[in-house]
Amino acid sequence: MNTKNIFTTHKSIREFLPRIVDDAIIMKIFNAAIRASNTGNMQLYSIILSTQPKIKEELLPLHFNQMMVKKAPLVFTFCADINRFNKWCKLRNAKPSYDNFLWFSTALTDTVLAAENAALAAENAGLGICFLGTTMYNANEIAKVLQLPKGVVPVVTMVAGYPEKNITEVTERLPYEGVVHFERYHDYSDKDIEKYYHNLENLDKMKNFVKENNLENLAQVFTSVRYTEQDSEMFSKKYLDFVKESFRIN
Amino acid sequence: MNTKNIFTTHKSIREFLPRIVDDAIIMKIFNAAIRASNTGNMQLYSIILSTQPKIKEELLPLHFNQMMVKKAPLVFTFCADINRFNKWCKLRNAKPSYDNFLWFSTALTDTVLAAENAALAAENAGLGICFLGTTMYNANEIAKVLQLPKGVVPVVTMVAGYPEKNITEVTERLPYEGVVHFERYHDYSDKDIEKYYHNLENLDKMKNFVKENNLENLAQVFTSVRYTEQDSEMFSKKYLDFVKESFRIN
Repeated sequence: MNTKNIFTTHKSIREFLPRIVDDAIIMKIFNAAIRASNTGNMQLYSIILSTQPKIKEELLPLHFNQMMVKKAPLVFTFCADINRFNKWCKLRNAKPSYDNFLWFSTALTDTVLAAENAALAAENAGLGICFLGTTMYNANEIAKVLQLPKGVVPVVTMVAGYPEKNITEVTERLPYEGVVHFERYHDYSDKDIEKYYHNLENLDKMKNFVKENNLENLAQVFTSVRYTEQDSEMFSKKYLDFVKESFRIN
Repeated sequence: MNTKNIFTTHKSIREFLPRIVDDAIIMKIFNAAIRASNTGNMQLYSIILSTQPKIKEELLPLHFNQMMVKKAPLVFTFCADINRFNKWCKLRNAKPSYDNFLWFSTALTDTVLAAENAALAAENAGLGICFLGTTMYNANEIAKVLQLPKGVVPVVTMVAGYPEKNITEVTERLPYEGVVHFERYHDYSDKDIEKYYHNLENLDKMKNFVKENNLENLAQVFTSVRYTEQDSEMFSKKYLDFVKESFRIN
């Protein structure tokens, strides 16, 4: 693998060989994760690595039966964690105040910095990875399976293992000018939007999504099929209720 | 630079040479950022790169006058952004529903995945970087300087440039066993906490912090000096109020 290109060649891998990953590689992933930048060196995250079939089976329906949760040898659940820091403070007669919205956002940030470092280290070691956004949808139930105490909130899951197929094609993204702003933000005109979404909308794959769903365009595939208002509102309330058990959000 | 070690050698760089960074390197950073994993390929983030002295001067006090904001040639502000996606939906007669707590958390996650990819690509190109957590503290004021519309929330800032000094020593972290859990979460006993925080607490630098502040221990340096309850509550309310202008948080 060409490490020069490791930052621009990510492909989500969802099918894995039934091949064990050496402990040395798992250690590389852990060491990469903990060396990521974080706020004040407080490391307000925990990483749960699940490999046992029994536990992966319990997690599987919580990730909407995406089979990679069962088939990937490694399932990492990255969690925002103020529990450990609070315990340290308690033991040291110090009073922590890191259970509010700011610190939820901060802990989430640090968790994801660690997760992305882990992802790149895994890919650099020859593994394929995929992040699962479903973690937030069923955080409550995932917390039960993983026996998370209060103060620990699942943020994102990463499955990893040796890819079954060698996928080289990367996913179409907006051109960089579509997400980058120089000096200050330059708000998007209709013409800008047309320009930046043009390639994505005109991929055969995307046109097929639109056709299969009898919709007018790709944006409607997102809003009417992939991420509907009903699901969005339900899962948002569910995640917020769960996060509120650990953080004061308002 | 040894790319094999890029994932485990991060040091925060706060002093920079007055040396211009080539556009080719800046492009590498942008391309790394947009190739990071993200939810549903929606890319709910924007990156603002500020290089002009005038704008950096405006940002400086909002980052508590940390001089690296002025002296680094590159100041990247990574923002969660539903504005662009909403505009696309509007133009396509689609109704987006991504302005709730779940999607704030999702957009924040995607923003940080992109930011860490950018950080590693910058380091791999020979630059030094430092993330600034102050972005959330003064998000409202930073948004004004960067002219962010509603739907765009600053999450984290990264300064980058050529390091003035070659720093090789990395910051002490908790041992990996202190943040990693196998299969399920194993809650920390007092003995665990003592073990995992032992090295950190016993660094000369940390002992000096304790002494200088006339405190009993390092945990109290965090709670009484670095991140006090008063600041935590004030900045949390401030960030929440600002985020609520773009997302329905409850």
